[in-house]
Amino acid sequence: MATPETEHPKKAYGWAARDPSGVLSPFNFSRRETGEQDVAFKVMYCGICHSDLHMLKNEWGNTTFPIVPGHEIAGVVTEVGSKVQNFKVGDKVGVGVLVGSCNSCQGCAANLENFCPQMILTYSAKNKDGTITYGGYSDSMVVDERFAIRIPDNLPLDVAAPLLCAGITVYSPLRYFGLDKPGLHVGVVGLGGLGHVAVKFAKAFGAKVTVISTSPNKQKEAIERLGADSFLLSKDQDQMKAAMYSLDGIIDSVSAVHPLAPLLALLKPNGKLVMVGLPEKPLELPMFSLCTGRKMIAGSCIGGLKETQEMIDFAAKHNVKPEIEVIAMDYVNTAMERLAKADVKYRFVIDIGNTLNATTS
Amino acid sequence: MATPETEHPKKAYGWAARDPSGVLSPFNFSRRETGEQDVAFKVMYCGICHSDLHMLKNEWGNTTFPIVPGHEIAGVVTEVGSKVQNFKVGDKVGVGVLVGSCNSCQGCAANLENFCPQMILTYSAKNKDGTITYGGYSDSMVVDERFAIRIPDNLPLDVAAPLLCAGITVYSPLRYFGLDKPGLHVGVVGLGGLGHVAVKFAKAFGAKVTVISTSPNKQKEAIERLGADSFLLSKDQDQMKAAMYSLDGIIDSVSAVHPLAPLLALLKPNGKLVMVGLPEKPLELPMFSLCTGRKMIAGSCIGGLKETQEMIDFAAKHNVKPEIEVIAMDYVNTAMERLAKADVKYRFVIDIGNTLNATTS
Repeated sequence: MATPETEHPKKAYGWAARDPSGVLSPFNFSRRETGEQDVAFKVMYCGICHSDLHMLKNEWGNTTFPIVPGHEIAGVVTEVGSKVQNFKVGDKVGVGVLVGSCNSCQGCAANLENFCPQMILTYSAKNKDGTITYGGYSDSMVVDERFAIRIPDNLPLDVAAPLLCAGITVYSPLRYFGLDKPGLHVGVVGLGGLGHVAVKFAKAFGAKVTVISTSPNKQKEAIERLGADSFLLSKDQDQMKAAMYSLDGIIDSVSAVHPLAPLLALLKPNGKLVMVGLPEKPLELPMFSLCTGRKMIAGSCIGGLKETQEMIDFAAKHNVKPEIEVIAMDYVNTAMERLAKADVKYRFVIDIGNTLNATTS
Repeated sequence: MATPETEHPKKAYGWAARDPSGVLSPFNFSRRETGEQDVAFKVMYCGICHSDLHMLKNEWGNTTFPIVPGHEIAGVVTEVGSKVQNFKVGDKVGVGVLVGSCNSCQGCAANLENFCPQMILTYSAKNKDGTITYGGYSDSMVVDERFAIRIPDNLPLDVAAPLLCAGITVYSPLRYFGLDKPGLHVGVVGLGGLGHVAVKFAKAFGAKVTVISTSPNKQKEAIERLGADSFLLSKDQDQMKAAMYSLDGIIDSVSAVHPLAPLLALLKPNGKLVMVGLPEKPLELPMFSLCTGRKMIAGSCIGGLKETQEMIDFAAKHNVKPEIEVIAMDYVNTAMERLAKADVKYRFVIDIGNTLNATTS
């Protein structure tokens, strides 16, 4: 019987969780041969996304164990298939949340592979051959060129990694919902992995940026470290009242259940509240708050591959760099505990290249 | 002390509720003199909006008693002020939800008086002089020209009346959210006063229209009487599943609390769910349904006066006529009971001109 270690011809090594305890430990598995449209690469860095934690603990109920997480993957090309056009050995390359799609639906045709009903997630999903996908907490990746992102030379691989999920997740809605115009006033709720990058992209687009948080100690960080223009303490009724009708749009990155009415109240007429966190339970939607001033709440989830490339090129050009804490592979379980407590500024990135092989398999 | 009957110089007569029982009965009050920018008119017809019922019973907690409801008002001009430019005596005229605004804010400047923080509602609101506004269940109206709509000659006053609230409430979001393009597939949820007009406007824009309802007996009506192309029984899982990803947008006119996830599932990626009903309690907003396919939920509430004029001209040109049941003034309390049971196809319109004066004051 095929096992993860024998189902494909190329040996691979990473860290996996075997059960919903979510504890990660060394894991031997395998990768497919580099196909004619494939790019193979050595993983150098992998960001830790909050989704990784949810999936490790099977909190969304769709995890296949063993799971090798990681969908913020940056590395260096080691092999390319005969039909690959955009990459050569030695290139800097990244992979985000997707490694496959049908290539024929309306979504795929419109470069919105993230809308493809048959999209293949980078880990804990089924490949077309029925094998399970394994993510970037591992030494190597093999992906179809379509799902490989070229990382610009001036963008270090460690800071590039989180852009491949956190970056595109906030960049795409800022663009799509027209919140990318200079002079607009954009709010960012939640200052975690997504929120802090949203601040940076919004600033790069020329917006005035206000961070909205429940924690007064985020004020200094938001303004001095991340470059936000102002700060609203959401628990302070007076502050919130004074800021009513002031924002053109809000990127809400909070993944816990939270009230929407106070956020809707901050929006100008025609304002847009875009949810990029994914609370597990439904939120309460007050209709009067929505109808008064024709406001809208939208959801957004990563972006297509073409836009991901555009995003990372924009980030390189405008110096948008996630704030990261680089960790060793064997620190990952501690990092997950800290992430669960939001104890990270602002994204853990695993130094796969230098620390994975130091662990024993 | 000034009373409703003496506070203004011109005698007026209508029906009012004195308390939250909501029972309407004859009521003597007064209207202001026709100012230089005012249009005075004899009320001929007034539609009964569901808001009237909410307000009569003080269900939103902001009713001032006595209340004369009615904000779907059509009549004939009897007097114009010296500076009035667009109306003359004998013209057909209408008034909707608003009779005043600040004329100086961004909303007013953009012809979106419905966004003005100082907008004055047509009834149970405060005029600038502190007196209370009284609506169209009455013999006469006096309004600033800005808030008077010219009713085209080929549109009968009785069918014109409901367009002034129900009509603009569905027309405006179809326009603003880009659901007015021929060939789009638009869903309409709820087949009441708003929903049935939404079907007609969407058809007039050239959309394919699907009515979504919990009542199988609405199918025949929706298709044969209102001209919808298809019908979805929302309780039928198989029908709903087969229709997934099929709609570009939905106008949801249901004012009761109802689940949003099945509606979001009907939308194509980038699809838009527009809420024009006003459920009193918050709805449950499931985030995965929203984020998958970058969908949005928006609220909308009437429209500005310029767009209201555009709407009624469009309706006249494209033969968009609400389906109405014309009633006599003294039937209004029975009509309210029937409205509470959704027993109307599809809008009650009070024949003020012929029946109001038959009642005794």
